[in-house]
Amino acid sequence: MSVSTSFDADAKLSLEAGDVAAYMQSLGKAARQAAGELRRADSGQKNRALYAMAARLDAARTEVLAANSEDLARGQQNGLDAALLDRLALSDGRIDAMIEGLNQVAALPDPVGEISDMRYRPSGIQVGKMRVPLGVIGIIYESRPNVTLEAASLCLKAGNACVLRGGSEAHASNAAISRCIQEGLGDAGLPAGSVQVVATSDREAVGAMITMPDYIDVIIPRGGKSLIERIAREAKVPVIKHLDGVCHVYIHSLADPAKALAIAVNAKTHRYGTCNTMETLLVDAAVADLLLPELARQYAEHEVELRGCEQTQALLPQALPASDDDWSAEYLAPILAIKIVGDIDEAIAHIERYGSHHTDAIVTEDYSLARRFMAEVDSSSVIVNASTRFADGFEYGLGAEIGISTDKLHARGPVGLEGLTTQKYVVMGSGQVRE
Amino acid sequence: MSVSTSFDADAKLSLEAGDVAAYMQSLGKAARQAAGELRRADSGQKNRALYAMAARLDAARTEVLAANSEDLARGQQNGLDAALLDRLALSDGRIDAMIEGLNQVAALPDPVGEISDMRYRPSGIQVGKMRVPLGVIGIIYESRPNVTLEAASLCLKAGNACVLRGGSEAHASNAAISRCIQEGLGDAGLPAGSVQVVATSDREAVGAMITMPDYIDVIIPRGGKSLIERIAREAKVPVIKHLDGVCHVYIHSLADPAKALAIAVNAKTHRYGTCNTMETLLVDAAVADLLLPELARQYAEHEVELRGCEQTQALLPQALPASDDDWSAEYLAPILAIKIVGDIDEAIAHIERYGSHHTDAIVTEDYSLARRFMAEVDSSSVIVNASTRFADGFEYGLGAEIGISTDKLHARGPVGLEGLTTQKYVVMGSGQVRE
Repeated sequence: MSVSTSFDADAKLSLEAGDVAAYMQSLGKAARQAAGELRRADSGQKNRALYAMAARLDAARTEVLAANSEDLARGQQNGLDAALLDRLALSDGRIDAMIEGLNQVAALPDPVGEISDMRYRPSGIQVGKMRVPLGVIGIIYESRPNVTLEAASLCLKAGNACVLRGGSEAHASNAAISRCIQEGLGDAGLPAGSVQVVATSDREAVGAMITMPDYIDVIIPRGGKSLIERIAREAKVPVIKHLDGVCHVYIHSLADPAKALAIAVNAKTHRYGTCNTMETLLVDAAVADLLLPELARQYAEHEVELRGCEQTQALLPQALPASDDDWSAEYLAPILAIKIVGDIDEAIAHIERYGSHHTDAIVTEDYSLARRFMAEVDSSSVIVNASTRFADGFEYGLGAEIGISTDKLHARGPVGLEGLTTQKYVVMGSGQVRE
Repeated sequence: MSVSTSFDADAKLSLEAGDVAAYMQSLGKAARQAAGELRRADSGQKNRALYAMAARLDAARTEVLAANSEDLARGQQNGLDAALLDRLALSDGRIDAMIEGLNQVAALPDPVGEISDMRYRPSGIQVGKMRVPLGVIGIIYESRPNVTLEAASLCLKAGNACVLRGGSEAHASNAAISRCIQEGLGDAGLPAGSVQVVATSDREAVGAMITMPDYIDVIIPRGGKSLIERIAREAKVPVIKHLDGVCHVYIHSLADPAKALAIAVNAKTHRYGTCNTMETLLVDAAVADLLLPELARQYAEHEVELRGCEQTQALLPQALPASDDDWSAEYLAPILAIKIVGDIDEAIAHIERYGSHHTDAIVTEDYSLARRFMAEVDSSSVIVNASTRFADGFEYGLGAEIGISTDKLHARGPVGLEGLTTQKYVVMGSGQVRE
C-alpha cells in the first residue's frame, strides 16, 4: 500500500528523492494557492466538501480500519504503551464519531465574510471590519488519527488551507483518512491543496513547516509540552498554543460552602488529564478549618493525594508537605496542592506568580471581590462560582475547538472557528479623496 | 544635566556599571509590576494622569526646549540631514500639539473592561469576553521626541505599562519629556514603572527588550524598514508591525472616470512619504486609452515620474520602462508604476504577488466585482471607490493610531487603543460543575 498522499508531481518527486525541505515547499506552495481559491468558496461549497468527506469515509471504513490495523501492529512491535495504543486505535464507533463531527462542523455558522462596525466617517467613507480566513494553517499533532479529520474540517470551514503533520505512529491511518478528504474535496470542486497531510514521518518536515512564513500563516501544535516548547522556540511563523494548565480554585471566606465543596471536588476529580483541571486549591484562612476536613474526606474517596502548605498540614495531618515546585506543577494526576491564604490579594499574587494564565476560578458570594477577581486575574478564562472544567470550546458554545491559547495576542482561551479567521478593514466610498 | 530617567535604584546601579542587560531586566520587572497595578486603575485615574502629564509638560516648556536644543546642537555637529533635524525639533507649537494629543487621548472611551457576548449556556453558566490590557508594551522608535508622549499616553489609556526606547539623537529631549510623564504619574498616584523611557542609547538595550518575553508582552517598532526587519527577525516577543506599503489602485473598466481620476491622483500625490500612498496603478485595458493620457497630464503637473509596462508605454511615450523591481517598489517619492491588466483576476493576482498586504483600492461601479475585490484581496485595508490615503487610524475613527499592522494575527490595519488590549473569557456561574 502506498502511503503517499501527495497529489503534486513535484512534491512526490522531492519526497522520493529524500529532499524533505523541497517536498514541504511544494506543499506550502500548493496550500498558498488553494488558500486563494478557498477565499472565494462560499459556505455551501465548503459544506458540500465536508458532507462528501463524511460519505467517503463511511464508504472507506474497511480500508481505513485496515490501515489502522497496520499502525497498531507496528505500534505493538515498537512497544508503544497501552494508553498510546488506545489513542491510536480506530473502530467503527470512532469512525461514526468522526462522521458526526464532520456533520456538526458543516452545521456551524460560517464565520467568513461577516462585516461588523460599518460606520460612516465625517469624510463620507464608510469603514468597518470584514472577517476573512487566516490563509494557510499548519497543524502538528501526535498519535490520534481522528485529529486529522477534525483539524481539516475546522480549517476548511473557516476558509483556510491546511498542512497537517500527524504522528509517525498513525502514518497509515492518516494516509487512508487523507484519501477520503481528497475525494471529498474533489467531489465539491475544491482544490486538492486545501488539505494536505504530510506524507513523511521525517522530523525535518516539522522544522520546515515552522519556518515557511511565505507559505504558512500560523502553526497550531497539539501534543505534549516538550513538542510545543520546541515548536514555539524554533518557529518563524506565529504559533497559537498553550504550554501548561496550572489552574486554581480560590475559595474566598464568603464562599457558599456547598458551592465551594462541589466546585473544588469537580474541578479536581472530573478528569485528571485535562488542561483545565484544577492543580492548586487556595483557601482563605478564615474558612479553612470549616471546609478543608470535609474536602479532604471527599478527595480521599477519589484517592486524591494532598500536598499542603504548613497551615494546611496543621489542619490535615494526612497531607504531604508541598514544596515550591508543587505550586507550579501540572500534575495531570490525582494529586492536589493546597495553600491557605490570608485574603484575595494573596490569592491573586499566588496565581500571578505560579499560574499558567490558563483558567482560574473564585468561589465567593462577595460582589466586589468577584468583580476584582474577574478584572485582575490575567488568565485566558476567569471563572466565578463554577468549575474550571468548563473552560472548553464546546461548553463555551464555540461549537468546536481546535485548541486552547494561553497567549495574549490573537486567540485567547478556547479557539474555535473564529480563532481561525482574522479581520481586515473594508472601506466603501463614493469617490472620496483625502483633503 | 542628568539624562537618567531611572527611578529604580537597581536599574540605576546596573546602568552606571554598564550592565545594559541587567538594567533592561530591572525596567522589565518594574513594568511587569506596574502592569498589575494598572489593571486595577479605573478610567478616572488614568485620565487624571494624562491631564497631569499635560500640565507638567506645559509647566516645563523651558526645560524641554532647552533639552531639545542640546539634541539639535549635537545633531548638527554629527551632521544629521535637514529632514531628520526637522523631525527632531520641538517648538512651542509642537508642545501645544503634544498637550492637545494628551487631552484627546484622555477624552477617548476607555477600552478596558468592556464585556461582550455574555450568553447563558445549557449548563447554566454565563460566558462572555472581557477586554483587558495586554500587559507590558515595548515601543522602539526613531528621532521624533513627541512619539514618547504619544506612545506613553496610548499605552496608559489602554491600561498597559510600557518601556519606550527612542532614538539616540533625541536622548535629552526624551529624558526631559520622561520627567513630565513621571511627575504626571505621581500626581495621579500611578506607579513610576507604568512608563519607563530607556535611559541609555546603547544598542544592546534594543536586543534585550525584544528577548524578554517574561517582562514584555508585545513589541511595536516604528521606524525604517531595516530597523523593523531586524527586530522582527530577532524578537522572542510578538511584534506588531508593517514593513512595506506597496499600495495599489485598480481602475476597473466600469469605473466612473471622474472618480477614477480623482482617486488615482489623490492616492499618489496627497503625500509621497506615507505608507498608504499608492505605488502602483493598475488600469483595465478597456479604459486605458481613455484615462491614461489625462492621468499622465495631471501627474505631470505634480512632477510624478511614470514607469509603465509595455502597453502603458505605447499609450504614454513619456513613461520609462518598468522593471520587475518596480512592481514591488515602495518609492515613497513622486514616482508611480503603471500596469495595464486584462481584468479583475489579473489585477488581484498582481496585488497578491507584488503587494504588501497593506492597502489596496478598486474603482468600479460594478456591484459584483466590488464585492469580489473586498472579499478576495488579502490586505489589511481593502477600499472601494476612495483613496488609499484613508487607511489611517484617525480617518477610520479609532481616535488615535500607534501604528499599522500588516500581520494577520491580533491587530490588522491601523492600530488604536483596542489593538493595545486583548480579550479573555469570563464565566459567571452559580455553583455549576461539569457532569
